[in-house]
Amino acid sequence: MLFLNKDAIQKIDQNSIQTAVEQAYRLVLSQNYNMPDRMHVADNQNILLLMPCFSEKFFSTKLVSVFPEAQQHGQPAVNGVMVLSDNVSGQPLAVMDGAAVTAQRTGAVGGLGVKLLTPETVRAAGVLGAGVQGLSQARYLLFNRKIKTLYIYDLYKESAINMTRVLKKEYPDVDYVITENANQLVENSSVIIAATTSSNPLFETTPDGVMGKIFISIGSFRPDMQEFPDTVIETADDVFVDTLFAAKESGDIATPLKKHVITKNKIKEFAGLLGKNTYPENRTVFFKSVGMALFDLTVSSAIYQLAVKNNIGQALDF
Amino acid sequence: MLFLNKDAIQKIDQNSIQTAVEQAYRLVLSQNYNMPDRMHVADNQNILLLMPCFSEKFFSTKLVSVFPEAQQHGQPAVNGVMVLSDNVSGQPLAVMDGAAVTAQRTGAVGGLGVKLLTPETVRAAGVLGAGVQGLSQARYLLFNRKIKTLYIYDLYKESAINMTRVLKKEYPDVDYVITENANQLVENSSVIIAATTSSNPLFETTPDGVMGKIFISIGSFRPDMQEFPDTVIETADDVFVDTLFAAKESGDIATPLKKHVITKNKIKEFAGLLGKNTYPENRTVFFKSVGMALFDLTVSSAIYQLAVKNNIGQALDF
Repeated sequence: MLFLNKDAIQKIDQNSIQTAVEQAYRLVLSQNYNMPDRMHVADNQNILLLMPCFSEKFFSTKLVSVFPEAQQHGQPAVNGVMVLSDNVSGQPLAVMDGAAVTAQRTGAVGGLGVKLLTPETVRAAGVLGAGVQGLSQARYLLFNRKIKTLYIYDLYKESAINMTRVLKKEYPDVDYVITENANQLVENSSVIIAATTSSNPLFETTPDGVMGKIFISIGSFRPDMQEFPDTVIETADDVFVDTLFAAKESGDIATPLKKHVITKNKIKEFAGLLGKNTYPENRTVFFKSVGMALFDLTVSSAIYQLAVKNNIGQALDF
Repeated sequence: MLFLNKDAIQKIDQNSIQTAVEQAYRLVLSQNYNMPDRMHVADNQNILLLMPCFSEKFFSTKLVSVFPEAQQHGQPAVNGVMVLSDNVSGQPLAVMDGAAVTAQRTGAVGGLGVKLLTPETVRAAGVLGAGVQGLSQARYLLFNRKIKTLYIYDLYKESAINMTRVLKKEYPDVDYVITENANQLVENSSVIIAATTSSNPLFETTPDGVMGKIFISIGSFRPDMQEFPDTVIETADDVFVDTLFAAKESGDIATPLKKHVITKNKIKEFAGLLGKNTYPENRTVFFKSVGMALFDLTVSSAIYQLAVKNNIGQALDF
């Protein structure tokens, strides 16, 4: 059995991770996977999520714990442990830092959105939210497109400054601009990625303000969360989601549906874009990913296989 | 984070494990724990069980996979991974071989049954089933009582021979007798522990044949499984179970209830025996344990704390 911590996981190249996310969407199309509803356990103010998923060769279980008060003691609120097993023999193959797997796969979902939805000529983009997920979104954005100016906004300016510092080392030629608010970021960017835990839309806008832009929402994984104002989804020519059945999990989809701002038939599965040529330009697009255990499965499988091949990680005598 | 494989777990002394099981029953009394229904996932012919449990200081999740066809390829059908975390900070503390934790805690449940139900003078005992669980039952039986003759029966004689070989090294002064059938074992033993996956009672008997004996059933964890004939529970003066709500999970309780062989009010919680003096002699007793995640939690917590104290296991750079 292999143990892979955050550092080991970060040694896996971004292209392989993004290809693994693409593989997950292919499985959505072929329906060749088994993803039971995740188990949601509440214990006092804390939450434990158990997320199993099965493909032909592997199965994975991600354990995610959310302890809101841990931050007060200087510890991360969210922890994860990922167990990957062989789906033929049943043997456990690897234990991984689940938070690191989540960051990689979530970044790569945004990255694949950028790859399939935005023109190669895009030069100005913005990331809303400068936490772990925001950083990962920025990395996969910069991996996919030659961005000239990256706008960053976070409620806590310190977080945006930290994120800029990290990215400057990896992509020194990009101009990083920390905006004073989300509106300013949206005005200046043609691609906007949001990775926040906001319950309310992050900015106000008019249809003219969003026309022709690509919006990717990675946060809002619960019906009571919403990152983008209804104007975005209302104005959008195209709306994509991970899977149609997952759409109701996010307030960015569920709320506009409930308010009759849009109808269900406007929403399409992102997987339908695979294998398509360049996306038509000048369209307003909204892509909402709520995340799913299937991403964890294909990404952790790819990480495991590459780790074995390249001698990465710590061997465990199971 | 710490990794503890089977060898590391076996270094923890039996007394500490059995004390941890006693602690689990104390938590049953005080109700100071949170044990959600386990998640049961089917994937083709395979099963994945996710078993979380929370106490004040720790929480644990055991992942158990049952792959019936793995045995055909010389691999174990049942695999387990145990993740223990801190219930204040949410941080993961240890990953353990879940099968080894299960074997220890299940053996210790039987051992505690022997300790609290049998007279110290017992000299002849029998174990039905010579698999991993049967071996663990025998170890905890011999740990608790000065057994002179241990009767062993298994459908596959080879398994009984192997088990005898292992036990002889640990307890060379015991006489080991492999019986030709289960009836012969029951006739000669005053304490009978069953650890099989049998769907049908392992032997036939009359009320006279079971009077004054102590029966402990560790197998039959599903309503379609039964280890002891109805005569045992019908004749028993006292019937104990882990928890009243878990009793319905085992055919050894559910089937006699359904057939009106016994009534519910005959069934008592085993935890009620804690702190009692020596059990009255010459009574016929039936103790059915179906197992629960709470045992895994208290036992893995104890294993972790002792492993840290005694420098056991492999350190992981999480």
